[in-house]
Order: sequence, then structure tokens, then C-alpha cells
Amino acid sequence: MRSVATRFIAVLLVMFGIAVSLAVGSQQPERDGPRYQDSTSLVRPTNYREWPFLGSGLGLNYEPANTGADAPPTFTNVFVNPSSYRGFMQTGTWPNETVFVLEFRRSRTDAAPNVAGRFQGDLRGIEAEVKDARFPDGWAFYNFGAAEALTDVTAPLSGTAVASCVECHTTHTAVERTFVQFYPTLLEVARQKRTLKPGF
Amino acid sequence: MRSVATRFIAVLLVMFGIAVSLAVGSQQPERDGPRYQDSTSLVRPTNYREWPFLGSGLGLNYEPANTGADAPPTFTNVFVNPSSYRGFMQTGTWPNETVFVLEFRRSRTDAAPNVAGRFQGDLRGIEAEVKDARFPDGWAFYNFGAAEALTDVTAPLSGTAVASCVECHTTHTAVERTFVQFYPTLLEVARQKRTLKPGF
Repeated sequence: MRSVATRFIAVLLVMFGIAVSLAVGSQQPERDGPRYQDSTSLVRPTNYREWPFLGSGLGLNYEPANTGADAPPTFTNVFVNPSSYRGFMQTGTWPNETVFVLEFRRSRTDAAPNVAGRFQGDLRGIEAEVKDARFPDGWAFYNFGAAEALTDVTAPLSGTAVASCVECHTTHTAVERTFVQFYPTLLEVARQKRTLKPGF
Repeated sequence: MRSVATRFIAVLLVMFGIAVSLAVGSQQPERDGPRYQDSTSLVRPTNYREWPFLGSGLGLNYEPANTGADAPPTFTNVFVNPSSYRGFMQTGTWPNETVFVLEFRRSRTDAAPNVAGRFQGDLRGIEAEVKDARFPDGWAFYNFGAAEALTDVTAPLSGTAVASCVECHTTHTAVERTFVQFYPTLLEVARQKRTLKPGF
């Protein structure tokens, strides 16, 4: 009888271990930050449309250079990975390993019942910004290209290609290197947490 | 010895039960649909900014009536509860118990480095639309009021207050009673699933 009891205990211990690992595994925070290849090339997030939306602009002047002066203005949508969003809402600062996706969308006017307003149409391109201590100054910028030919993985912008990003994201951003002045719900949090740069 | 083994087995069984219930509980889909008081009054969702964003418009003509002709155009953002979003992406139709939140935000131009574009500012008001078999025609519309005085719970609009909602959401919507023509990622899915109404 003791050997039966011993075997039964052994089986129970294994099942208990499995159940505990399932319970713990499913309660751990999802790893939703940047995914890299070759240490710094960013894998394009494919599920960013399920991430928290920070704000939308129309015709803001980080408009892509290929927009002609008479072309309709472009919508820009910004999304951030969920765990970093929750981090910002608690602290007013961005945790390490935060990914921002900047999506460019054509603006349209041609669908009833709309008369004079603008709504969002086809994707035109995707860019990203990442905060990660692996980069010399803590940040990197990526361009996945135009919608017709998006790349799945891309190296961080460097040299003259990134200089204007860094300049604008340093000089004109309300919190760290991010345009929190354009993200109304975050702006309130940054005010409360006193993390806005002087002048905002 | 047998009684020690029996007690040990009993303790293991209880711990196993707790571990299993934790594992199962944390893997069940989150209940993120409409919450009611008195059966049909909707509790305003407070975490909708973490829900999937469907699209943004500027100056669309479901603009609130209190906007003067010379006032700046209003941004409208639409969000949907996560489980219904996933349901639509799989089927091109809305599951029962779907909540759409329509958020009105002031448009602004006055923050560097912006020159001529518009970005989103303060909240102006919140409305909602719900698909739920508990309503006679399957849908209900809610207005939580202006941002300065949002109500936490509100009864569905009725009579003349809802007539224009129903008329427009019946005549001009691309999928069921929703403006999928304004939500670019859903529009693609509805095309693939052939759930667009004739004419779209």
C-alpha cells in the first residue's frame, strides 16, 4: 500500500507542478516590448493596432517628404506597447524597452454621410521609435518604408538620416524624446507627475 | 504512516485544486462588454483608451450641434471592446455585447513643432453605441454628455433623441449599424469576409 500511496503522491506532485506553472505563466506580464534581430534591427510589430492609441494628427509637419504641397494632408496615428503605456500612466515617464509605432494614413472625404470632414484611409507608411538602454543615447528611430513595400525588419536610422529625428525629438518634445504635447491623455498624467520639460 | 500519507495526499489535492483554478481563471477571456445598471442603462467604460482604436475623423458631420460654424473642427475617435474587436477580425461581423465608444476631442494647432496641422486636445464629450440582443432591434445609443459633466451611467437614448442616430446608422453604415467605411483596418476585413452592405 505504501508504494501505491508513494506513486500517487508522485503523480499528484507532477500535476501540481504543471498546474502551478500554467497559473504563474499566464499571470506573468506579456513581453510586448521591442523584438530585435542582430541586436539592434527592429522586427516590425504586427499587432500594434491592438496597442493603446496615443493620438492622431492631421497634416502635422513630420509629414513624409514625398507629399506634394497640393496633396491632401496625411493622418498620423501613434500607438505604444501596452506594458509601457501602463508604466507611463503610473509614473509619467517611459520604461526601458518602449516601442512607439507611427502610422501614416491617407485622409479621405469621399464616403457618405461625410460632407466636409476627413477620415482615415489607406496606410501609407510605418515608422517606429524605441527607448532602450542598449542604444548609446537610449533611443533609436526606424523607418519600415512605404505601405506597398513595408520591410519586416530594419536597422536603426543612422548618420544624416537620423540627425533630424534626434534634433526635433530633443528640442521640441514635452517628455523625454516623445511628443506628449500631442497625446492628450498622457499630457494630463505628465502634468500631475511633473515630468514635463520646462516650457510645457 | 498511512495516515500521514493520506493527510499529505489531501493537502496536495487541495493545493492542486487551487493551482488549477488559478490557471483556468486567468486564461478565461476577460469580460469586457457592456456593463448595465437597471438592465439597460450603460455604465460608462473608464478604460476605453486601452481598447483597440478603430479610426479618427476631423470635422465629420456627426459633429455635436453646439459647434459654431467658425469653431475649429472636432476630432472624433472610436474605440471598441477588445474581445469584440478580435471577433470582427475573424468574421467581419460584430458579436453580441459589443460596445463602441465615440470620443470627441478639441483640435489644436498651437504647439511646436507643429505649423499648420491639427492635433488632439481636450476631451469634449463621450457617446456610445451597443450591440446587444437585449434591445428590441439589437442596438442602443448613449450620450454621456459633455466632458465637464460626464455622467457615470446613462439610459439609452429614446424617442426623437435616438431617431436620427438610428436613421443614419441604418442608411449610411457599411457593416451592420457601424461606419466601417471610416475604419480602414476593419474595411479590409469586411471586404475579405464579404460582410459589406451593397454599395460599399
